[in-house]
This record gives sequence, C-alpha cells and structure tokens, in this order.
Amino acid sequence: MDIKSLLPHIELALQKQVSRLDQPRTKLFHEMLTYHMGWTGEGSGPEATGKRIRPLLVLLTTAACGVEWQPALPAAAAVELVHNFSLVHDDIQDNSPKRRGRDTVWTKWGMPMAINVGDALFVLSNQAIVDLKENYPAEIVVKAAEILHNTCLELTRGQYLDMSYEGRKDLSVEDYWPMISGKTSALLLACCQIGALLGGADEEKQEAYRSFGHYLGLAFQVQDDILGIWGDEKVIGKSVASDLIEGKNSLPVLAGLKKKGKFAERWAQGPIKPDEVEELARILASEDGYGYAKEASIQMTDMAINSLREADPQGEAGEALFELANRLLNREQ
Amino acid sequence: MDIKSLLPHIELALQKQVSRLDQPRTKLFHEMLTYHMGWTGEGSGPEATGKRIRPLLVLLTTAACGVEWQPALPAAAAVELVHNFSLVHDDIQDNSPKRRGRDTVWTKWGMPMAINVGDALFVLSNQAIVDLKENYPAEIVVKAAEILHNTCLELTRGQYLDMSYEGRKDLSVEDYWPMISGKTSALLLACCQIGALLGGADEEKQEAYRSFGHYLGLAFQVQDDILGIWGDEKVIGKSVASDLIEGKNSLPVLAGLKKKGKFAERWAQGPIKPDEVEELARILASEDGYGYAKEASIQMTDMAINSLREADPQGEAGEALFELANRLLNREQ
Repeated sequence: MDIKSLLPHIELALQKQVSRLDQPRTKLFHEMLTYHMGWTGEGSGPEATGKRIRPLLVLLTTAACGVEWQPALPAAAAVELVHNFSLVHDDIQDNSPKRRGRDTVWTKWGMPMAINVGDALFVLSNQAIVDLKENYPAEIVVKAAEILHNTCLELTRGQYLDMSYEGRKDLSVEDYWPMISGKTSALLLACCQIGALLGGADEEKQEAYRSFGHYLGLAFQVQDDILGIWGDEKVIGKSVASDLIEGKNSLPVLAGLKKKGKFAERWAQGPIKPDEVEELARILASEDGYGYAKEASIQMTDMAINSLREADPQGEAGEALFELANRLLNREQ
Repeated sequence: MDIKSLLPHIELALQKQVSRLDQPRTKLFHEMLTYHMGWTGEGSGPEATGKRIRPLLVLLTTAACGVEWQPALPAAAAVELVHNFSLVHDDIQDNSPKRRGRDTVWTKWGMPMAINVGDALFVLSNQAIVDLKENYPAEIVVKAAEILHNTCLELTRGQYLDMSYEGRKDLSVEDYWPMISGKTSALLLACCQIGALLGGADEEKQEAYRSFGHYLGLAFQVQDDILGIWGDEKVIGKSVASDLIEGKNSLPVLAGLKKKGKFAERWAQGPIKPDEVEELARILASEDGYGYAKEASIQMTDMAINSLREADPQGEAGEALFELANRLLNREQ
C-alpha cells in the first residue's frame, strides 16, 4: 500500500473510461483525449500525466477507513477526469499554449475541438462515477455523484470569479478565498469526502476528511502562489515570477496591494515587463506580500494536518495519506 | 394534460436548478445563464426560451405510461439543461453571433465566460438528474443518470464528427447518419427512454419509446436540412439557403454530391456566395438532393410514428405525444 503501487491501477481505470471513445469513426477524437491525458503523442509519459494527486486521495482515504481500495477505482478515475476537463477548458480560457511542457489541446487541434474534448472528459467523469454501481449500493452511488456534481458547480463558480477578477485593481484578500475554494479546494475536498463515503466512514469522519481536503487545497494553492513569484524554476516547472507578468491576482499580490505602497503603485500602472520582475518581487516581499502569504500557508497547512489527525486514518494507507499531504505542502524541499 | 399547461412547470423546474448560482458573488454569472435560458435581458420571453420539446417529451412519455408526470420534473429539467449546454458551446464552436434572434452568450460576455456558462449548464443538468432521488428509488436514479451520460457522450461524438467534416469534400450520405444520430437524435432518444423508465415501463416498452425518440430526431434533422435550403424564412426563423452559404454537410448536399453533376462541380470549387444560392438550390433539387432527403424524411417519420404506436401511449398524454410528434414532423404546414 504505497503511492507508487497505486499509480498503474489509476492509469488503467482512466484508460478504461477514455476507451469509450475508441471507436472506428472517432479515432482522432479518442487520440485528442489520450494525448491530453499524457499517454500518447509527443512528450507522453509520466511527466505528461501529472501526479494523479486527486485519485490517490480517493483511494488512500478509502483504504485508510480500513476497507479495500479497489472498488473505489471508478471514483478515482472520475475525479481525475473532472480535473482534466477543467484543465482543457482552462487552457483555452487562459490562452495558454503549453501545459506540462507540451502543446495544449487547443494549440494542436484548435479551440472548437478543444471545447469538445473538455466536454467529453466531463461526460466520462460522470460515466465513471456511475460505474461505482458495480461495487456499491445505488444509494452510495447517488451520494457520490451528488458530491461530485456539487464540486463541479463550485469549480465553475471559482472559474467565474477568477475570470471576473481579470484586470480589476480593486480586489482584496477577501476576494481571494472564495475563488480558490472553488478553483482548487473543492475538488480535493470531494476526493476526500468520496473516499471516506466509499470507506464506510460515519458522518463525523466524513466531515473530518472533507475538512482535510478543503485546507489541503487552500494550503496547496497559497504555496503555488508563493512559488509563482519567488519559487525555483526547476522545482515548479514554470518560469519564476511568471505570475507577476500574467497579472495573476494571487494571495501575495492582494496582500501587497493592501499596503498601498510601491508595489501597489506599480501594479496599478498596468502589465509588468519581464525585466521588472526581479525588483518588483523584492518590493512585494518587503511590503509583506511574502510574509502574509507564508503565514496563511502555514495556518492552512496546520488546519489540514489537524483535520487529517482528527479523521484518524488507519494502517499503511493512513501513513501514505500523511506522506502525500506533507509532500504536497512542502514542495520547495 | 395538454402541452401548454406543462410549460410553466418546466420553466419553474429549470429556474430551480439555475438558481443554484444565484449567490452574492456570482450574480452576473447567474445572469449569464438566465439570459441564455431566455428569462432575462434583451428579447427575453417565450420566443427566446425555445419550445422546450425535450422536457415535454420526458413528461408526456411518463404520463403516457399511466403515472403522474410531476415526479419526473427534475429529469425534464436535466435534458433541457443538456440541450442548452450544447447550444452555448455550439455557438462558440460555430462562431455564431445570434441564437433565436438574440446575441449569443459569447457575443455578450466573451468566449472564456461562455465556455464556463456551458460547463455550468452541464453541471446543473447532472444535479437535476440526481434530484430525482426525492421521488424515485436510488436504482432508478442511477439508471436515469446512466442514460443521460451515455447520451452526452453521443453528443460529443456527433459534435466531433460535425466539426471534423468541415471543409471535407469527400463525404457521402453514409457519413451523415452517425453525425446526426449523435448531434440531434441521441438526446431525443434519451428523453423518451428516461420518460418511459420513470413511467415504470417494461424493457420492451422502453425500447419502443427509445426507437420513437431516435427516429423522431432523425426525421426532425432531415426536415431541418431541407428547410435550410428550400425553406420559408418566416417559418424557420433563419434566412433561406443559409446552409449552402455555410457549407453545411446536410443530407440534401451529400445526396446531391453523389450525382457528380453540376452541383458537385460548383460545391468543390469553394464557398457559395449569397447571389448564387437560389440557382444552386434549383440545381441541387434537379440533381435529386431534394427528392432523396424528402424520401428519407418520410421514411424516418414513418418509423417514428410506428414506434410510437408500438409503445402504445395512454390517455390524454398519449394523444399529446402524437400531436407533438406530428407538429415536429410537419413544420412547414
């Protein structure tokens, strides 16, 4: 029961879902999905698939409740398909040409096809969650589907907020949390809650796992925000400080704006150029952007770990859950 | 139990689903959905909502099985939300500025927001189908969800085929049916099957209703194709022969190409200009494009009506189903 041994099972469960499109007239359509999932095309392989954090959370949570994880595989596939649907649409919305170092779907096949690829991944996630019916009573399937759908609505809310914030200069840290709760946290919360549901956990334990997923997501996003300004290019795989150039309303930025100092003055003047970034990151740090975000990250991390302790995960899966959480929350190390 | 009396119930059921987004931070997001649904903004009203054919099919089918239609309302909302999700994304993919005489969502709020509006409508359809749990056993909810999700995968397949056909000059009538089976027919089939399922119909009767929905969809689309070339602008609400200008691979066109005559010659030379349309439509008719499509339309209509007879719908709802089918299949009258 270690993380590595689960990964091949997750890939198989995902491939089973995506293979629904592997039919004579839709070979290229199927290929678009297998390319995005990291299985085919240029640059395919473990680097391209992503870390499959979300399905791991489902399976480890189920196992940490003391039951078999294998029957939960369709749910693990479902959450990863939701994540990937949102990535494909996000890349179009953000006009991002690259994802994990590879061309995005819209870059390769155009925007109209990419919208449809995202839609198909979304449909497949719905089909995956219903596949739980092979292993669980219908009441549990309905409950799991309900959690997943509620999460997806949160995702669209978070996405709306993110897009509606673009170009706005009047935002505060209070605007930040609802956005990342939807964009990042909701799905991690759903992974843990569905895992606990399928693990047969009672309401109280489910709530503790929900809480773990929620704070894990918030802590993870705040760390990502910090790395996006002061991080190490090798570690996070994207160029340092690109978040400043992109004008992203990240937590350090919103915290810095509160000071109404030099950072706020420059930020209000419009897009940041690459050669300004290093100096501006330094100014932002000196005006508490770094400290505020770091403090928030520590708080959210504590809440996540405390919630996980409260959930009291069992056995090797429990240890693996703590390990995964620590890995996610200390990425700079 | 007539069609008109059902419509306000359908609107209420839809509004209940969409209101999930009616929250303080997402007022504008909610407005984007209520605008698209035809309830708010410029040109809102019955003309803007569309005819709600799909939810009517669900409710009438359920009632025609001899049970109450009210508990099926969440399913009626679900299918209409799927339809509208696909319209919002379709308008982006087709670059269509207008829908039912009004600006499309992407025209008003931009492409990135419109992708998210479509995604949200899709999520709401999933939430709506799960709402059946208030009125039916969990096994039935899972079965209804399964039908809906399978249909949605067909929709993405049909959409893929449609887009992949663009600009291709080597298509034949054999390429046509899989495309419209996915794009138009699958959802009508699902409406009738879900309606029958919720009506407590046995497998055989469900199959007859499925078949009715399937052929109804095919017949409807072929008629739409005919009207798109030779139709009456007042009747169908779009300019006559716009399908030729748009280069749409409709059934009359694909049938005409088989003749390898004057129509095929002109079609191969690239985009049709507005001033050529009238003459080209005449040529296409003389080269059997009209006759072939008309014959197909009659065949599909017969199959639809025969399947409906086989399903043996009961009571006033049964009469209303025949009336709705006849209305859909004789739109030029």
